[in-house]
Amino acid sequence: MDKPLVGIVMGSDSDWPLISKAHEILDELAISHEVRVISAHRSPDIAFDYASSARDRGLRVIVAAAGGAAHLAGVLAAHTILPVIGIPVQGGAVNGIDALLSTVQMPAGIPVATVAVGSAGGANAALLAAEILAVADERIAAALLARKRDLREKVIAANERIQSQLAL
Amino acid sequence: MDKPLVGIVMGSDSDWPLISKAHEILDELAISHEVRVISAHRSPDIAFDYASSARDRGLRVIVAAAGGAAHLAGVLAAHTILPVIGIPVQGGAVNGIDALLSTVQMPAGIPVATVAVGSAGGANAALLAAEILAVADERIAAALLARKRDLREKVIAANERIQSQLAL
Amino acid sequence: MDKPLVGIVMGSDSDWPLISKAHEILDELAISHEVRVISAHRSPDIAFDYASSARDRGLRVIVAAAGGAAHLAGVLAAHTILPVIGIPVQGGAVNGIDALLSTVQMPAGIPVATVAVGSAGGANAALLAAEILAVADERIAAALLARKRDLREKVIAANERIQSQLAL
Amino acid sequence: MDKPLVGIVMGSDSDWPLISKAHEILDELAISHEVRVISAHRSPDIAFDYASSARDRGLRVIVAAAGGAAHLAGVLAAHTILPVIGIPVQGGAVNGIDALLSTVQMPAGIPVATVAVGSAGGANAALLAAEILAVADERIAAALLARKRDLREKVIAANERIQSQLAL
Amino acid sequence: MDKPLVGIVMGSDSDWPLISKAHEILDELAISHEVRVISAHRSPDIAFDYASSARDRGLRVIVAAAGGAAHLAGVLAAHTILPVIGIPVQGGAVNGIDALLSTVQMPAGIPVATVAVGSAGGANAALLAAEILAVADERIAAALLARKRDLREKVIAANERIQSQLAL
Amino acid sequence: MDKPLVGIVMGSDSDWPLISKAHEILDELAISHEVRVISAHRSPDIAFDYASSARDRGLRVIVAAAGGAAHLAGVLAAHTILPVIGIPVQGGAVNGIDALLSTVQMPAGIPVATVAVGSAGGANAALLAAEILAVADERIAAALLARKRDLREKVIAANERIQSQLAL
Amino acid sequence: MDKPLVGIVMGSDSDWPLISKAHEILDELAISHEVRVISAHRSPDIAFDYASSARDRGLRVIVAAAGGAAHLAGVLAAHTILPVIGIPVQGGAVNGIDALLSTVQMPAGIPVATVAVGSAGGANAALLAAEILAVADERIAAALLARKRDLREKVIAANERIQSQLAL
Amino acid sequence: MDKPLVGIVMGSDSDWPLISKAHEILDELAISHEVRVISAHRSPDIAFDYASSARDRGLRVIVAAAGGAAHLAGVLAAHTILPVIGIPVQGGAVNGIDALLSTVQMPAGIPVATVAVGSAGGANAALLAAEILAVADERIAAALLARKRDLREKVIAANERIQSQLAL
Repeated sequence: MDKPLVGIVMGSDSDWPLISKAHEILDELAISHEVRVISAHRSPDIAFDYASSARDRGLRVIVAAAGGAAHLAGVLAAHTILPVIGIPVQGGAVNGIDALLSTVQMPAGIPVATVAVGSAGGANAALLAAEILAVADERIAAALLARKRDLREKVIAANERIQSQLAL
Repeated sequence: MDKPLVGIVMGSDSDWPLISKAHEILDELAISHEVRVISAHRSPDIAFDYASSARDRGLRVIVAAAGGAAHLAGVLAAHTILPVIGIPVQGGAVNGIDALLSTVQMPAGIPVATVAVGSAGGANAALLAAEILAVADERIAAALLARKRDLREKVIAANERIQSQLAL
Repeated sequence: MDKPLVGIVMGSDSDWPLISKAHEILDELAISHEVRVISAHRSPDIAFDYASSARDRGLRVIVAAAGGAAHLAGVLAAHTILPVIGIPVQGGAVNGIDALLSTVQMPAGIPVATVAVGSAGGANAALLAAEILAVADERIAAALLARKRDLREKVIAANERIQSQLAL
Repeated sequence: MDKPLVGIVMGSDSDWPLISKAHEILDELAISHEVRVISAHRSPDIAFDYASSARDRGLRVIVAAAGGAAHLAGVLAAHTILPVIGIPVQGGAVNGIDALLSTVQMPAGIPVATVAVGSAGGANAALLAAEILAVADERIAAALLARKRDLREKVIAANERIQSQLAL
Repeated sequence: MDKPLVGIVMGSDSDWPLISKAHEILDELAISHEVRVISAHRSPDIAFDYASSARDRGLRVIVAAAGGAAHLAGVLAAHTILPVIGIPVQGGAVNGIDALLSTVQMPAGIPVATVAVGSAGGANAALLAAEILAVADERIAAALLARKRDLREKVIAANERIQSQLAL
Repeated sequence: MDKPLVGIVMGSDSDWPLISKAHEILDELAISHEVRVISAHRSPDIAFDYASSARDRGLRVIVAAAGGAAHLAGVLAAHTILPVIGIPVQGGAVNGIDALLSTVQMPAGIPVATVAVGSAGGANAALLAAEILAVADERIAAALLARKRDLREKVIAANERIQSQLAL
Repeated sequence: MDKPLVGIVMGSDSDWPLISKAHEILDELAISHEVRVISAHRSPDIAFDYASSARDRGLRVIVAAAGGAAHLAGVLAAHTILPVIGIPVQGGAVNGIDALLSTVQMPAGIPVATVAVGSAGGANAALLAAEILAVADERIAAALLARKRDLREKVIAANERIQSQLAL
Repeated sequence: MDKPLVGIVMGSDSDWPLISKAHEILDELAISHEVRVISAHRSPDIAFDYASSARDRGLRVIVAAAGGAAHLAGVLAAHTILPVIGIPVQGGAVNGIDALLSTVQMPAGIPVATVAVGSAGGANAALLAAEILAVADERIAAALLARKRDLREKVIAANERIQSQLAL
């Protein structure tokens, strides 16, 4: 694979089900990327190094997934000017609101681009990363436009299935 | 001003206090941008046209601010593959949680890059837009790095003020 | 079936379990209706066309079900003066509060008649549609009055079952 | 004024600021209406009588505003098949979430068409009532279409004001 | 059984699992009681009659269980000066917060004595009813004191079990 | 004054505005009562003694008001079989939800009769105490019935004021 | 075992799954401790005695776990100047927010050191107790440092597993 | 002043009103301490260095105050085995719930001792720090015991003031 453009970081390998969705979509869009397990709290020096060197290593976007007091995206954003996309991971208690607020309520100066808590977050983080790269990459832009058309077609197909079913 | 790269859209001109912060920061970073009042609900055709034509008109990033059942960012994102940044605006009731959830909980396929509800959102939307542009623009990247250093200096200065005050 | 008076729209065919309840009740009340899968975000142009032409096509009420950042009812309401009833669909995260707030907290000028998040929403959307039609249709009014009496009878019957059970 | 078509009920005269907005809009739309102070808890027999006789007295829609454990709309809906619109009133504690949930989470069989908690609710209840009447009244339909166009014009005007201001 | 002193009312027979706990405890305390299924919304006239006549029929306390927009306790309290105890029933959506707020946030003048949402509510409603009766009934007071001592003994026994287990 | 029947306890004298309302209503109903400042956390032994001896001293009902992690009502209930009414006091943060949940979510075995968080709580605690006493006191029952009629008259009068105002 | 330094108290033996995690970690760190079942509400005198005598018996830290209106940690803290660590236990309703707020929102003067609601709370309470002891105990400090290094190693190992898996 | 034992860190000098309370209490207890402004996001390297070197510099406890996505306490805890006390600071939006959840919901392995959001947090953080030091310092223990007695006296005095006032 080419030098990765997107770095996907998860706070724990238990976040893989969500992250694997992002991984698959970037593969489908042929966007080179890397996946890392790095914890903001248990391996903070690695988080520090990862984010500090990310831009020089050629990364263009970072995606970070974490649950609970989800500091990972914010900690990475503190060390880089790359866009950082945060995926709040829903865990056992308080229904994911903790991860959502810990990811999105960043102070002025250090934005995190937060996507949905719940199952849509993994997919949308990858797509948002692709949209960011597409700002300066026509191939990715074309792929995203095609994907958007496909989404529309799928809705039309779902509608047709319902019509057939109701016509019986 | 040059052809705008960032389009800032607010659902109502009552959102100006938040949006003006984004406007100021983009001015400071010398990023050309435009500001529009467009309502997802009261002028949906204009929202449709604005988002559909945004990429062809040269925009690279869209920033959208709305409160309550805040659909503006999502509606714009439905019509474009440009990255759309959503600012949830805190209003009278339920403390801004409505705007936050309406902006961030987008379905798979249509991401909105959501920033903080509350006063930090306006500034961070502009900075996130700048980070996205900086992926392919070294001038903006340099400006963001400088700004990040400044932020750090301001914290150090605030710390020194407290030390002086406590030393009295 | 006659020309439909009620249009039921769902954002995704995964919402069918909720929508099928509305469909059944309208069937029971002999109210002609149609069912569509239309996404506010994935097929926004279809949503636009559907709502814009709804009144001319003879629809009298629109029912819309969506989850998460549930914009569907609001987007339809933006394009029509027909009454739009919104059903917030409970999904994986934050317990349906996202869908509820995204549906009900509409800005002044564009109302959405919101019913309960959770299992009662599907049934009540259909009944509310029927009540709206009954304003000018005595047959439907009579059917609703009968149904209301039935509901009361069912409560009385449930009470009697409990009395029998306790008397053992 | 003609025989009222819309009955507006408030749980307490302290809800007048919200209700007066609904009253004004119905006046603007030339829709005959009446206003009552009736409490679900302090004058339940009056609520019972009001709702039970509403349809026979010629009312077509009921609008009910209440705060806290906001039972008014639900209690009225229990006694009539007229569409009942509920306005949750924001009070001192828990930020209006109590009134919203008490109004919207009705059991299957007894819908309440709930509008926004907060300042938009008063206006939107009146507009929703008008939309319901417009199902069978072309004059009101025309007035609502004109109003919808006006709303769009106001957004355009607000946008122009911002452009002028930014051009200085 | 003697003339009932406590009336237990549930909004739906699906609330029986919670109510049966209250029923058992009142049986254990030898407090005569009756159980009814009455819906605030589907059989409002029965609710009205039940509460209005309750005191004359010899009831001393009413216990009411309901979920969602849980108006039952409040509606009964509107028609009687007997103490009304409300049990908020946890349902499918928003985790029971709807039932809790709809039960507890009563307006000044019409109190509802609210107990816990969740499994403790059924038991505690019965015990609170017993405490109220015990104000003027020494036999019940003695039974409650014995029960309180038992509860304490059970905690001590549970502690001893843990000590034995840890000593292994 | 006679030997007090109701003991009103507040966690801090800053709760006086809420408690004074309860005090006034009990005065109006001519129910003898006492008022104490006792903290569950800062004077726990006094709370222990107060609740343990309350029944022997002739108290029939205890009312307890506290905010934040509002343990006062629960702690008193732990030491007595008298009915304990809890008033959750709204404080600076999280909008009173903390006091409400800390008061109402009691474990099985130790009920607290919880009234509304916010301004209605003070009045309703006094009325609930009166309702409990009225179970065995016809004078108080008569006073409560009169008060209930007055409440209804006040609603009627408020309605008449609105009619006059609208007739102008 | 030596005289216990840490007292772990749970409100009910149903809290054992959470508490056993704390027990295991203290065992691993070779910190002597005791485990008790004591209820703030069902055995308040035992809670009183336990906390009042804790310091004289040689305890240095108390850990308390409870759910719902979780008063246990606060009640213990009221009777001792030992640091009290509170674990909010997630129960059936309102998703653990009740236990969290009841534990953390203590009034000025009586702190409770609150850890996470959900599965992490048990482990972190034990580690926080160890950190407190390590302030004056180099052996425990060394064990904690080693454990912190281990945590970091486990993240690195998890990352390596993901790399291997992705390399396939 | 002696070498500081407690390090108080705030994310922004706007947190000073809360922190000054902690500072005053530590002064009253004659516990040497230092105050720093350090941002987890704007000066992350300083946060890293501060926490990493804290134990070697002689600090025994760290207190950290931050609002919004309040990562400060967690970030410091990631770099030290000293007990870290987190004060969630209430800000403009979502009522401080964001700061509370971001501070308390730490993953297993990295505890933060969280105190109340709102005005009590500042005082209680200082007192908790003192309790931790008192584990191995009899002078501080004695001061805390005295303070606890004073708190109790103040409650008694407040009670006496109310009695005098009511006796008038």
